[in-house]
Amino acid sequence: MKKTIDVCLSPELINLYDLEGKIVVVVDILRATSVMVTAMAHGASEIIPVATLEEASSYQQKGYLCAAERGGAPVEGFPLDNSPFSYMNDDIKGRPIVITTTNGTLAITRSTAADKVLVGAFLNIKALANYIRKQNQDVIVHCAGWKGKTNMEDTLFAGALVELLDDSHDLGCDTPHLALKYYQSVKDKLYETVKNSAHARRLNKLQVIKDIEFCVKPDQYDEIPALEGHRLIPVS
Amino acid sequence: MKKTIDVCLSPELINLYDLEGKIVVVVDILRATSVMVTAMAHGASEIIPVATLEEASSYQQKGYLCAAERGGAPVEGFPLDNSPFSYMNDDIKGRPIVITTTNGTLAITRSTAADKVLVGAFLNIKALANYIRKQNQDVIVHCAGWKGKTNMEDTLFAGALVELLDDSHDLGCDTPHLALKYYQSVKDKLYETVKNSAHARRLNKLQVIKDIEFCVKPDQYDEIPALEGHRLIPVS
Repeated sequence: MKKTIDVCLSPELINLYDLEGKIVVVVDILRATSVMVTAMAHGASEIIPVATLEEASSYQQKGYLCAAERGGAPVEGFPLDNSPFSYMNDDIKGRPIVITTTNGTLAITRSTAADKVLVGAFLNIKALANYIRKQNQDVIVHCAGWKGKTNMEDTLFAGALVELLDDSHDLGCDTPHLALKYYQSVKDKLYETVKNSAHARRLNKLQVIKDIEFCVKPDQYDEIPALEGHRLIPVS
Repeated sequence: MKKTIDVCLSPELINLYDLEGKIVVVVDILRATSVMVTAMAHGASEIIPVATLEEASSYQQKGYLCAAERGGAPVEGFPLDNSPFSYMNDDIKGRPIVITTTNGTLAITRSTAADKVLVGAFLNIKALANYIRKQNQDVIVHCAGWKGKTNMEDTLFAGALVELLDDSHDLGCDTPHLALKYYQSVKDKLYETVKNSAHARRLNKLQVIKDIEFCVKPDQYDEIPALEGHRLIPVS
């Protein structure tokens, strides 16, 4: 029997979903989960998502490499920023990384009732779909959104995953249908579309546009960060 | 200067939107707002949306005509149900009607901070768009959804209104873009699509299918119910 896939468009709605026994895929394309996947692909040993800047600071004092973002911009005083390009070097190899972001880390901490919490991005979407297909479990895509509101890029990722899992997962409700149709209507011009997202318009800077171009590229990496306790480690 | 249109996909998210000075269009296509528009078009003098069955009962004891719905089905003990066809007769002419529903009335009561609260449906969408264009105000489409979750038919209505207001209202955020693209991807087979909605599947009965066919028909009526105090009256 086929399993089901559902989509939750905001962390403010996740309490309406029964997560027990399911896989939750957390997604924050711009840029938390894209950064996490990139960091793990470049050798980070684990990623610790934390809710507050204070927690990040406290880890930093203990010698951890920390990344902090608020309102889409990097926070001063932390060595790593929220661009995936900052994680493509040897400095992070074998090291744990602490990350705090506006939306992505909240979505992770609100998903812990699930059987498995995985980190998704376009960058690892095919590996993710292949892994999910083998688990034979229901899936909920948990979109981080923007400060509680639904957003474009996370919904598009949800639609892309629904499409990829078409052979193994039926639509659980209306929202996966919405995400799927939305994705299919713009998938041939994904970059151009997301370049006009509210996120891009809010932060209209060269680096952000470069980041967006990278973050909508599918299948760059095979790594899938998975929550174990309070940290993300590569799925085994 | 063009005004903006935004879309809120659930009453659980409406607190994230600033409603002050704006028009809020409340929509619950299946079937609360379709019923309200139909009732007003057939001469109901006013419609009083109430949150609880107790309030509806108390109005009934005072001689009001009452309609009650819970979980998509009519509630015993109330003369009117939640099918628009029940309102196409002379019994309701000139009479006030009290309505309580699962999602639609909640969305109305959570919209009262707005300058104007209007009731929208495919049935009155062109009249609604024409009226809004004349007001020169920002608009938020407030989708009633299903028990807090986003749903298909209300999102499709939002997309249809965004399309109609293209000449007067810019997109306020990502969600109107999502609704617009979703609507445009299925608008040529709106009935077939909504016939497969979670709502239709939940209540797979002949009457519901007939209701759906009617509720997705655009431009049947010119009446626009508008909130004044605790009741809806025809917009002037």
